[in-house]
Amino acid sequence: MVKRFYVDQYVDQILAGNRVVLSRAITLVESKLPADQELAQQVINRLLPYSGNSIRIGITGAPGVGKSTFIEALGNYLILKEQKKLAVLAIDPTSQRTGGSILGDKTRMPVLATQLQAYIRPSPAGNSLGGVACYTRESILLCEAAGFEVIFVETVGVGQSETAVHSLTDFFLLLLLAGAGDELQGLKKGIMEMADALIITKADGSNLEKARVARAEYINALHLFPVPPSGWQVPVQLSSALENTGISEVWKSIQEYAQKMQKSKYWQEKRNQQHLYWFRETIRQTLEEKFFAHPEVAKHIKEKEQQVISGQLSAFAAAQELLNLAYK
Amino acid sequence: MVKRFYVDQYVDQILAGNRVVLSRAITLVESKLPADQELAQQVINRLLPYSGNSIRIGITGAPGVGKSTFIEALGNYLILKEQKKLAVLAIDPTSQRTGGSILGDKTRMPVLATQLQAYIRPSPAGNSLGGVACYTRESILLCEAAGFEVIFVETVGVGQSETAVHSLTDFFLLLLLAGAGDELQGLKKGIMEMADALIITKADGSNLEKARVARAEYINALHLFPVPPSGWQVPVQLSSALENTGISEVWKSIQEYAQKMQKSKYWQEKRNQQHLYWFRETIRQTLEEKFFAHPEVAKHIKEKEQQVISGQLSAFAAAQELLNLAYK
Repeated sequence: MVKRFYVDQYVDQILAGNRVVLSRAITLVESKLPADQELAQQVINRLLPYSGNSIRIGITGAPGVGKSTFIEALGNYLILKEQKKLAVLAIDPTSQRTGGSILGDKTRMPVLATQLQAYIRPSPAGNSLGGVACYTRESILLCEAAGFEVIFVETVGVGQSETAVHSLTDFFLLLLLAGAGDELQGLKKGIMEMADALIITKADGSNLEKARVARAEYINALHLFPVPPSGWQVPVQLSSALENTGISEVWKSIQEYAQKMQKSKYWQEKRNQQHLYWFRETIRQTLEEKFFAHPEVAKHIKEKEQQVISGQLSAFAAAQELLNLAYK
Repeated sequence: MVKRFYVDQYVDQILAGNRVVLSRAITLVESKLPADQELAQQVINRLLPYSGNSIRIGITGAPGVGKSTFIEALGNYLILKEQKKLAVLAIDPTSQRTGGSILGDKTRMPVLATQLQAYIRPSPAGNSLGGVACYTRESILLCEAAGFEVIFVETVGVGQSETAVHSLTDFFLLLLLAGAGDELQGLKKGIMEMADALIITKADGSNLEKARVARAEYINALHLFPVPPSGWQVPVQLSSALENTGISEVWKSIQEYAQKMQKSKYWQEKRNQQHLYWFRETIRQTLEEKFFAHPEVAKHIKEKEQQVISGQLSAFAAAQELLNLAYK
């Protein structure tokens, strides 16, 4: 049970930038209790007019790519050099089992975690990916209302969460390691084509030459891809968190993108599409949850699936039989 | 209104390879009349045990890539050299407006269209992509029961239909033109990563050298892609329908794939996943159709969408309000 305040208290304190109340509000958003959910929605709807003013950046990459050190480097750059307030929301689908995030943020991002201008929040366990994404979407709104100007949404890059994060953010960074294609095996199909920038990490020391070669290869490969609807030419950049190189260049690319897209109206158009996507997605998920929770459906679903796999029933007929059970 | 036979007549005649009755059964499948739908489902469920024995091949590529001539060449090769019975199902989403397919198959595939061992069927106008895919899935089953051993499912490659076709077929061929990346602009994002083989068409005459260069580029680019779950290494092949080169090689790749995947059980595993996908998808679509057809929902949906876009309501709250209208 979350300790609850009144709606007004949440609203006032979040607008004043109170991080403790912000955290409590996010906990409400993540709560499964209907009373918490209702309160959360009231808070969000009150704060909605104060949201939307950040740059939302998705950051993903396979384990081992150096995501934490990159976020630490870019984050500190934004806070110290660009005087930005930064929120980092981490989605970790692997934490579903433990009931809490396995990401130890104090050790992952030691410097960033102590900055007053930074707010780091790992996602909790989620029952469904849609659920996690839904929390994150609303956490973004709350962080924006609390005055954070840049928001990182971090995912692991091997699961199903990237499509969701892609539809939550304005700019999508894909971190890659130099070398043969093999190290990409863990990455999800299609993820390269979602990226607005590719960053080759650990481009330092004896690795630098390899990183340069990889950069040339990725640039060539990107030429073979369909041009994205934004018309944006996806840059491939080198970065070393160790030597602190390439960090300001990444921010420069993001700024250039933001300026171009705000000018061409693509920025707002994309956000509108994202809002509509989540509107439809929420309806879709609720309809399915209701349907699959129906006692008759829950009782017969496994049997129907088995009949479909074994070829006893066509997919359509099996679906129809299940639908009839719920609607009779 | 379709002229109807009894279920037994459809079943017996289709199993006997009667193409006229096969066509009528597909027309039933495509019909929107509930009585036709019910009859179609009875026929399909009776024929289900006789289906599944073909190789289902998705073929896609942007307009101008030479899809018709490629299908004509590969199709005639299969019939004349490999003694196969071939069905070609063409999905043409652009035909939705005219209420009929714009593909004139007699002119598109002049030789194939006259072969007794070939059956060519354009898709009709569909109201939804899911609808068209649903027809096609059931048409595949009917064609298999009628003894067709290879089934082509053809799409235009610029729309949303490729994901659907990908989940209907065993092997997915992407046809490409040689040259710079620009001609790919029309292709849908992510389509390259769905392909089980890339075929560079029109690799003849003065175009041959360009095609060879493109082949090398695509091979390099594919190395940067995540390895597909099948473990299959996607070949990049040259083909000229004009000079009739590379056609048998394409078939060889498909056969190699089929043998490897049948041995590793991936073949059946993928089909099982496809069946479950369509089972879930049918449920999903039906739930949504019912919901959006609800008079209160239909009345308020535009207004809610507008409130979401203008930032008056969060996506979640708007969805909840609409759901409450339907369930009250």
